[in-house]
Amino acid sequence: MAKELKELTSRSVSYSQWYQDLVIKADLAENSAVRGCMVIKPYGYAIWEKMQRYLDDMFKETGHSNAYFPLFIPKSYLSREAEHVEGFAKECAVVTHYRLKNAPDGSGVVVDPQAKLDEELIVRPTSETIIWSTYKNWIQSHRDLPILCNQWANVVRWEMRTRLFLRTAEFLWQEGHTAHATKEEAEEETKRMLEVYATFAEEYMAMPVVRGVKSASERFAGALDTYTIEGLMQDGKALQCGTSHFLGQNFAKAFNVTFADKDGEQKYVWATSWGVSTRLMGALIMSHSDDNGLVLPPKLAPYQVVIVPIYKSEEQRTAITEKVEGLMAELKALGISVKYDNNDAKKPGWKFSEYELKGVPVRLAIGARDLENGTVEIARRDTLSKETMPLEGIARHIEALLKDIQSNIYNKALKYREEHTITVDSYDEFKEKIEEGGFILAHWDGTPETEALVKEETKATIRCIPLAGDKTPGKCMVTGKPSACRVLFARAY
Amino acid sequence: MAKELKELTSRSVSYSQWYQDLVIKADLAENSAVRGCMVIKPYGYAIWEKMQRYLDDMFKETGHSNAYFPLFIPKSYLSREAEHVEGFAKECAVVTHYRLKNAPDGSGVVVDPQAKLDEELIVRPTSETIIWSTYKNWIQSHRDLPILCNQWANVVRWEMRTRLFLRTAEFLWQEGHTAHATKEEAEEETKRMLEVYATFAEEYMAMPVVRGVKSASERFAGALDTYTIEGLMQDGKALQCGTSHFLGQNFAKAFNVTFADKDGEQKYVWATSWGVSTRLMGALIMSHSDDNGLVLPPKLAPYQVVIVPIYKSEEQRTAITEKVEGLMAELKALGISVKYDNNDAKKPGWKFSEYELKGVPVRLAIGARDLENGTVEIARRDTLSKETMPLEGIARHIEALLKDIQSNIYNKALKYREEHTITVDSYDEFKEKIEEGGFILAHWDGTPETEALVKEETKATIRCIPLAGDKTPGKCMVTGKPSACRVLFARAY
Repeated sequence: MAKELKELTSRSVSYSQWYQDLVIKADLAENSAVRGCMVIKPYGYAIWEKMQRYLDDMFKETGHSNAYFPLFIPKSYLSREAEHVEGFAKECAVVTHYRLKNAPDGSGVVVDPQAKLDEELIVRPTSETIIWSTYKNWIQSHRDLPILCNQWANVVRWEMRTRLFLRTAEFLWQEGHTAHATKEEAEEETKRMLEVYATFAEEYMAMPVVRGVKSASERFAGALDTYTIEGLMQDGKALQCGTSHFLGQNFAKAFNVTFADKDGEQKYVWATSWGVSTRLMGALIMSHSDDNGLVLPPKLAPYQVVIVPIYKSEEQRTAITEKVEGLMAELKALGISVKYDNNDAKKPGWKFSEYELKGVPVRLAIGARDLENGTVEIARRDTLSKETMPLEGIARHIEALLKDIQSNIYNKALKYREEHTITVDSYDEFKEKIEEGGFILAHWDGTPETEALVKEETKATIRCIPLAGDKTPGKCMVTGKPSACRVLFARAY
Repeated sequence: MAKELKELTSRSVSYSQWYQDLVIKADLAENSAVRGCMVIKPYGYAIWEKMQRYLDDMFKETGHSNAYFPLFIPKSYLSREAEHVEGFAKECAVVTHYRLKNAPDGSGVVVDPQAKLDEELIVRPTSETIIWSTYKNWIQSHRDLPILCNQWANVVRWEMRTRLFLRTAEFLWQEGHTAHATKEEAEEETKRMLEVYATFAEEYMAMPVVRGVKSASERFAGALDTYTIEGLMQDGKALQCGTSHFLGQNFAKAFNVTFADKDGEQKYVWATSWGVSTRLMGALIMSHSDDNGLVLPPKLAPYQVVIVPIYKSEEQRTAITEKVEGLMAELKALGISVKYDNNDAKKPGWKFSEYELKGVPVRLAIGARDLENGTVEIARRDTLSKETMPLEGIARHIEALLKDIQSNIYNKALKYREEHTITVDSYDEFKEKIEEGGFILAHWDGTPETEALVKEETKATIRCIPLAGDKTPGKCMVTGKPSACRVLFARAY
């Protein structure tokens, strides 16, 4: 039964069912009693905490401070920025009352009609409006700029079709909101934070990403430019992993935020915002995992090494435990996190598949014979290979191995992406190739009409106009009109 | 004008105005456009982050893991536990709709009446109900126990009279929720977490607290026992700083959470919950600060040392900066956080009062003469004393000084509390002494009637029945009936 519990639908049978199985069975998250809202379980949250910690360090290194703004946004605030309200005010959680009272029939509690709010409050779907209404009071002079704030928070968007981590009504994220005296500074900040996200994705998540700019129709509602990092999942679909927006003066104008510049003139403030969310958990899972379960990059694994003792008597168990304690101290001294699972109620085989399912990068097994021989069995999760090695010096070996696993996972994902990124010149070929999944670089005439046509006919969207890569002009694959450069198409989550 | 901006109402004139001034002027927090919701500003949030980090470490050391549960609670869930709904379901934010639409007259957006929820959702005021509905699926056998989860989250209670940090509609907190096989284990956990809070308050916040049990009428709604730590503020009022609840089997019964015990029997699970919130920020401020501003314990200060250069020429400034860089590296190597404020737009005097206002524990000033003499002026915030010292060896001196400040602040607060804790035997004396503020230890007959009478007549409440201290029985100061031991009375926030 234990085995069955852990068995995942194979990716080749149904990628989406595999994903769902994995999230549940690896104890990452589950659906809650509240429609569209997930429970992030301790093992999943431990990964998210590591993501938070590293990202937070990177934000602080680039000069940002954390702050906290209200959960609620007065309804009228959303209407201040015309595009923003179109994008965000529609599917949202609306607070209309502030009190319940006992039901007259004694059947529990009901909304008290006397306690109706004068103005409805929206549970924040994103915080530009409440933050810019606040910044108005913080900014008088150029000396008050820049403001470089970040907030770790929950947000709510009333999604109809939800999927754990990828699309949920409530999710956790960080949202940076910065205010600048000049356009150039704000644009620099937008790009700097995109690079922070890309670095985090590649160096910590071991996930290669394409850095690019969104087409107008894929922009954040209220932005002049949206920069994005796009990952390619194992099923050939793209996933937008993080965005950084150059907001121009749109929100400053909507909330009348001006400053006295050095030249004495009153000017509108320039803005950026940028965010990544628990969606990154989905990206992490879909970038590396396999039919046996999660594959975690060592830098984000809640524990990097698990040690399983194999014994037939209490004496053996005690002897192994003694040996293991020394090894654990050595590993911890090297900054390696380790779990010793000497739970007597589970068999080693059960544990092996459990930790495979949970993606622990390195597994050690030590039995009575190992004690005699001074050896240990070491298995790596990414390649599923194992070997017996001398216990002597194993800590240093593991330290190097973890680095190797981190880069191996990255290289594997990069290879996959390279093999699934193609260049196409005709729309017919595009329509054929898009069925195979992957990224397609093709020429586009730059019009929303052509973009919409391609989306309608092929379900592929322009993921971004890549910042790096081939900038040779050409002809749009659909209309034959001039194209400045190839853009990146894919079907996406 | 700068001076004026920083001037606080004196504590002797109005303690509450002093508090309000200080929170605003030291850039800790401010009121937002949303009724009762605050904005926590970067400097205030940096202190909260330190609190979070240390508390989180302590939770993990005691075996807890973080997780995340939904923001929303179905209305019917709140009614499952009879006392709980009385305590929490009344003043709360109620989500009734999930969509807005364009107003027919083009004046913005309005609630879409078509998008009414079948069941209203309550923004969590606390999460026992949603968490126990989740635990039901996690617990089958005694092997699944204990569950030791904590969540860092925002909660909303629709308070009518709010005060920054002390009482706000939305606040940030952590809530631990644990599930156990036996009553004894759950009671142990309740006490363990109280001790974690007390240790944190005393060792990090430098705030002495009384550990105790609440009287029945002051219990958490749904708890069998509520343990509390109570601090005494400088105005003689008590502040409840953290609570740990033994919930018995109340929530397990409400959500039908049972487990197969070792003896094969199905039993209800035992529960605890415990929390501290951004209210601790208020406690921190009111425990130590003075008419010049904040006084922060070094362990929680966003930066522990500030260095102000005093120069008359660019040359002097450069020379000082060079010297300071070496010192900063030394300080950082000792794990001391330091800020160098060489902002040319502000005068040293302005900076001195700014950092006094912000409670930076140690301030260094270095001028041209100091460079010649190899000296530095060092000022400590807690005593407002300063002296000139050799620059050589100053880093080690500062390291020791920070420890001294931490304990000095604690001792000062402890002395204040000791001087303001009295023992009273007659109700007449009680009524007289309560006007002076402070803690009063008095005998009480254990009835809610007497407790209510004292509260009505004197505005004093029973803060707790102290765990330590005099356990000699006596006679109730009001009724003369037998009393098991003295209890702690005070007027409270």
